Amino acid sequence: MSERVLKEYCHEYFLTAGECNAKQQMPFMMLAQRVIEVATEHANRIGVGYDVMIKDNLAWVLSRLSIEMTRMPKVNETYRLITWIENYNRHFSERNMEVQAENGEVLGYIRTIWVAIDMTTRTPGDLSKLELLAVTVSDRPCPIAKQGRMRPIADVSQQSEYRFRYSDIDFNMHVNSVKYIELLINQWSLDYHLTHDISRFEIAYLQESHFGNDVKVNILQSENVADAEIVGEKGVLCRSHIVF
Amino acid sequence: MSERVLKEYCHEYFLTAGECNAKQQMPFMMLAQRVIEVATEHANRIGVGYDVMIKDNLAWVLSRLSIEMTRMPKVNETYRLITWIENYNRHFSERNMEVQAENGEVLGYIRTIWVAIDMTTRTPGDLSKLELLAVTVSDRPCPIAKQGRMRPIADVSQQSEYRFRYSDIDFNMHVNSVKYIELLINQWSLDYHLTHDISRFEIAYLQESHFGNDVKVNILQSENVADAEIVGEKGVLCRSHIVF
Repeated sequence: MSERVLKEYCHEYFLTAGECNAKQQMPFMMLAQRVIEVATEHANRIGVGYDVMIKDNLAWVLSRLSIEMTRMPKVNETYRLITWIENYNRHFSERNMEVQAENGEVLGYIRTIWVAIDMTTRTPGDLSKLELLAVTVSDRPCPIAKQGRMRPIADVSQQSEYRFRYSDIDFNMHVNSVKYIELLINQWSLDYHLTHDISRFEIAYLQESHFGNDVKVNILQSENVADAEIVGEKGVLCRSHIVF
Repeated sequence: MSERVLKEYCHEYFLTAGECNAKQQMPFMMLAQRVIEVATEHANRIGVGYDVMIKDNLAWVLSRLSIEMTRMPKVNETYRLITWIENYNRHFSERNMEVQAENGEVLGYIRTIWVAIDMTTRTPGDLSKLELLAVTVSDRPCPIAKQGRMRPIADVSQQSEYRFRYSDIDFNMHVNSVKYIELLINQWSLDYHLTHDISRFEIAYLQESHFGNDVKVNILQSENVADAEIVGEKGVLCRSHIVF
């Protein structure tokens, strides 16, 4: 493979009507699913995919996700995600993405942070020995801010409860990362979503959760900025910062 | 287009890990989404798609869906849906599908019934003038039973409540057909699903529903056979028959 192929990976999709939300756009949750998909595909291609990592008892886990969209893909639109690795160290890898329309129009940018979890100890593994990552680091620019530190919510302006269902559970028997996002997005009404777009969305994953777990969703919103957290019996599962 | 192209349409997919459920298979809900997608694509190709129908103020609505799977597609598997029209009359069109693995292994069959709803009156339109449908009727066999009549549930062995959320709402501002299926499937626990496969699933859609609507899910199960209905304030939204 050429260096360009190693450094950048692109996947083109078509957004069908059945996939759209009430705004006739790609749902936010689906964009997150595509991000994970494209990251996985690129990792497979550059030799740090599941099959390779599991030999060291490691598996990639999404730790942080920041999305800034000018607009979401629309119904019957072809769109593509281009991904590259900005940096990595012992503890985590920084992977970025650009979302483009068919004609090359930039729809938005995405920053992700991945850790490699030891499947037995559930603690982060050491990435420094992954020499393949070094080759693929790219200086392609990603002009959105890195994720800020997300502090505990000081106060709660809105709270709801939820119990994770069968369809929330993924391949690894945990709650799917994407389902946390769905749960967060569902804290706002249809009317609110129809009149507000999300310009920046950040989430930090802190803990795994399982089938049947009861959680509380706490939100502190002021004007168009919301801080949110999903809290389980053993503490905070994720924190999120949303700018409408 | 050749007659073969008109009569049959095939779409090939790849099942990623992120799309899988806890059984490391395609979720039932996702299969239903693919069915609607492939039906839409074929309708577009044979000239009875949304753009054409809407000129007569009509839109296709899924009325019944019956699925019999020997097995679901597995993680990292390529699979395809082949669709054709078995028959149609003034009131509805019968569209079947075969699900195949990459090597041609038959994974299952699907029967669907579609009506064309008048967008203003919300009543079924007349399909008999769609001459294009006549050309595409195929005698390809679909060796699963047609959907039986689904009667009201006589008794309830299990009941739960649900309120439709933002992510349940589709393109047309109604609850997505696929979300009824998700809600039904979620009435069983992770443990139950891990130890039981669905061999036949039937659903009949009776009424539309909207954001924020409260519904009850009633189930009457005996051994491995369950009858279920989702009931809103204005009556039954759908009936389902599931054989595990």
